[in-house]
Amino acid sequence: MEEQDKNIQFKISNELIEKVELLVNSQDDKTILELLNDYHHADIAEILEELKTEQSTYIIKLLDSEKTSDILMEMDDDDREKILASLSIKEIAEEVEELDTDDAADIIAELPEERQEAVISQIEDEEHKAEIQELLTYDENTAGSLMAKELVSVNENWTVTECVKEMRAQAENVTRVHSIYVVDEAEKLIGRLSLKDLLMASPRAHISTVYIPKVDYVKVFEDVEDVAKIMQKYDLEAIPVVDENKILLGRITIDDIVDVIKEEADKDYQLAAGITQDVEADDSIIELTKARLPWLFLGLIGGIGAFIIMEGFQSSFEKYAVLFFFTPLIAAMAGNVGVQSSAIIVQGLANDDVKGSINNRLIKEMLLAALNGVILALFLFGFVWATKGDFLTALAISVSLVVVIIIAGLIGTFVPLFLDKKGIDPAIATGPFITTSNDIFGILIYFWIAKLILGI
Amino acid sequence: MEEQDKNIQFKISNELIEKVELLVNSQDDKTILELLNDYHHADIAEILEELKTEQSTYIIKLLDSEKTSDILMEMDDDDREKILASLSIKEIAEEVEELDTDDAADIIAELPEERQEAVISQIEDEEHKAEIQELLTYDENTAGSLMAKELVSVNENWTVTECVKEMRAQAENVTRVHSIYVVDEAEKLIGRLSLKDLLMASPRAHISTVYIPKVDYVKVFEDVEDVAKIMQKYDLEAIPVVDENKILLGRITIDDIVDVIKEEADKDYQLAAGITQDVEADDSIIELTKARLPWLFLGLIGGIGAFIIMEGFQSSFEKYAVLFFFTPLIAAMAGNVGVQSSAIIVQGLANDDVKGSINNRLIKEMLLAALNGVILALFLFGFVWATKGDFLTALAISVSLVVVIIIAGLIGTFVPLFLDKKGIDPAIATGPFITTSNDIFGILIYFWIAKLILGI
Repeated sequence: MEEQDKNIQFKISNELIEKVELLVNSQDDKTILELLNDYHHADIAEILEELKTEQSTYIIKLLDSEKTSDILMEMDDDDREKILASLSIKEIAEEVEELDTDDAADIIAELPEERQEAVISQIEDEEHKAEIQELLTYDENTAGSLMAKELVSVNENWTVTECVKEMRAQAENVTRVHSIYVVDEAEKLIGRLSLKDLLMASPRAHISTVYIPKVDYVKVFEDVEDVAKIMQKYDLEAIPVVDENKILLGRITIDDIVDVIKEEADKDYQLAAGITQDVEADDSIIELTKARLPWLFLGLIGGIGAFIIMEGFQSSFEKYAVLFFFTPLIAAMAGNVGVQSSAIIVQGLANDDVKGSINNRLIKEMLLAALNGVILALFLFGFVWATKGDFLTALAISVSLVVVIIIAGLIGTFVPLFLDKKGIDPAIATGPFITTSNDIFGILIYFWIAKLILGI
Repeated sequence: MEEQDKNIQFKISNELIEKVELLVNSQDDKTILELLNDYHHADIAEILEELKTEQSTYIIKLLDSEKTSDILMEMDDDDREKILASLSIKEIAEEVEELDTDDAADIIAELPEERQEAVISQIEDEEHKAEIQELLTYDENTAGSLMAKELVSVNENWTVTECVKEMRAQAENVTRVHSIYVVDEAEKLIGRLSLKDLLMASPRAHISTVYIPKVDYVKVFEDVEDVAKIMQKYDLEAIPVVDENKILLGRITIDDIVDVIKEEADKDYQLAAGITQDVEADDSIIELTKARLPWLFLGLIGGIGAFIIMEGFQSSFEKYAVLFFFTPLIAAMAGNVGVQSSAIIVQGLANDDVKGSINNRLIKEMLLAALNGVILALFLFGFVWATKGDFLTALAISVSLVVVIIIAGLIGTFVPLFLDKKGIDPAIATGPFITTSNDIFGILIYFWIAKLILGI
């Protein structure tokens, strides 16, 4: 039972990776097979990700396609792409043959266009081929793109005995049964049977007398994020997918939804940090630059904007150089408050927690920002007055701080709500976008108010 | 089949909420019961969250405890707390009686301490009571705190027929069966039976001949985040929990793990945005201030630090005022680069993607930051030279920008890696913490280098 304790410390050790490398280099196929036989495909995927592409391809070609198809599915997109590029059309078709339709379609969609058709034409199982071709027609981010064709469905006219017999046949192709869907003669979804109910039903009962007519489902063109929300809300582990006429097309399982939730969270996090594309720490410097540089450039433009504003006030404030020394403070506070308020709205929108009108939101944020602003400004006032001894300067700086914080909070609240209303992902409003615009507005407001109070 | 189409547009309409409010105010119990009967408990929970506490408590008292216990579990912690506070000990005990042990323990743990004991003593089912008491002993964030005692387990010595009979009895208490765990005489976990296998096995076969000896499990004191990683990695929908001697104690299901993943992602996102406590857009201004003010205060201290640095360079201000006008730009770039690099590391650590040594990471980030820095600096150099016509100033500002970006990237990379090594949550290093320290370092480095180049 070695496998079991390995799962507990589920990180692959460097020793193991080195051992596999050595075995591959010495082409000791027998020992490789023996060694890897003990490991779960998710673990083997992790090992392969650490090897050079030639080495991992060597292992993929060595192992059985039943196992390698699962391994490939567990690997990072980039690493998988490299391996697929060194496999022949026929070898890829063999992997695809072993996979469930949803995974098969995903793999094919990742291939260069010219190889896609070739791989599909090599799939021997005609039904599998047709199902994969159907799945490839659905747009990314729709329920159809996430569903698998594998499911267990029974006809309402069958008896429990017939149903169990049919299910045995169908279940061979289905990794996890979850629910049994009940359809009418036209394949229209009319209800479900739980395995538990089936276990307890009399063998001669007709399905029409034991099935549950209430069944949650989603339409095939539904957005995947909405599917994720529905499955989370109703604690579903699988949901059937139907077309406009309620004809049963496939089903989505919770493991795919977990991936959607993770990806969505990762994307929002990256946007908030000013990283556009989906990159990982291990991506190339070019990839990382593509994801990071545009936002930095935005920040640079913002900084130049701040420079122009400050230069414009240069003549007015020759006597008050001290005001210029507080611009980083003002910019930082405007940025921080903006990020805080936008993050709360973005997260609230993602969780459907934001209720009430935009006006109420803005009034609440104004009060909140005013409260925080006054507390911070009192502290700053004390500092400036104590160190500079100039009441009016201290007053000008701290009053500006309060106003800047309030306006930054309002911008941070308004922008994501506005984007959301316009159908644009509000997550884009967090991070550098809000920081940069708040920097500029903050500094501008700061000098205006200082000018007013100091009577320049 | 009204229920079905409602799920598709799963947001509760304002009309419905107003209707329920009116019905509650006119105490039209019959119509309330009829109306709500069509709704899923997760939908009713959403409706109740929109009502005043007296109104939602009224509905909770009206409905059957079998239904209300599920509704309560779906509600926000805050809203649930308010309703529980207006229920009697006996009423709470009735809700707890209906819940699975994990949910029951969660509800009790949320109660004020003096009510906890009272509620437990009112639970009539002695086994349920003992199981809840056991669950309450496990620390938060351990597998034990997340598991439920409800599961289906069979003895290796039973036949398939005995097993099915036993399972029927056990399954009555288990919402979703998932796997069937196989134990020996001492209740030690030795394997599993899949429902699918059971469906296909001969009725007279002994369990010991059909069970799968490979079974993933976690120990009861395992960290929940690690449990989440294991279940995600191995695509598990349920995992058994055992004690040090492998005695089967309970199991954790994927729906609880989805919640853990969501909460973890939300927490990291909030930390990156400078929000400490777990707050929502709908929380009170005081709650939101508690979560936001500390980080803003940190930013204020940083701004005062920047002020002190700039004041130290004041003597240069008269001749090189332009340098001071670029401090917001320098601070913004230092902050943005720091947030980007720390976010990538934090996310990589969370996903176990960060491989290799700290030194390699730092070298990579240095190259990346240098590349980005040079591109940005060339642009800035062009701008300053074109508008100011002063080669040396343009050079000083752009060279400093490159150095500041490199150092900001290194700090952003190093701090989360260092925190992680020390066992501190690296997510704390993103957001205001890194922005503030990078602001100060950035401005300091900027003036030093400018001084060096301009020979001030």
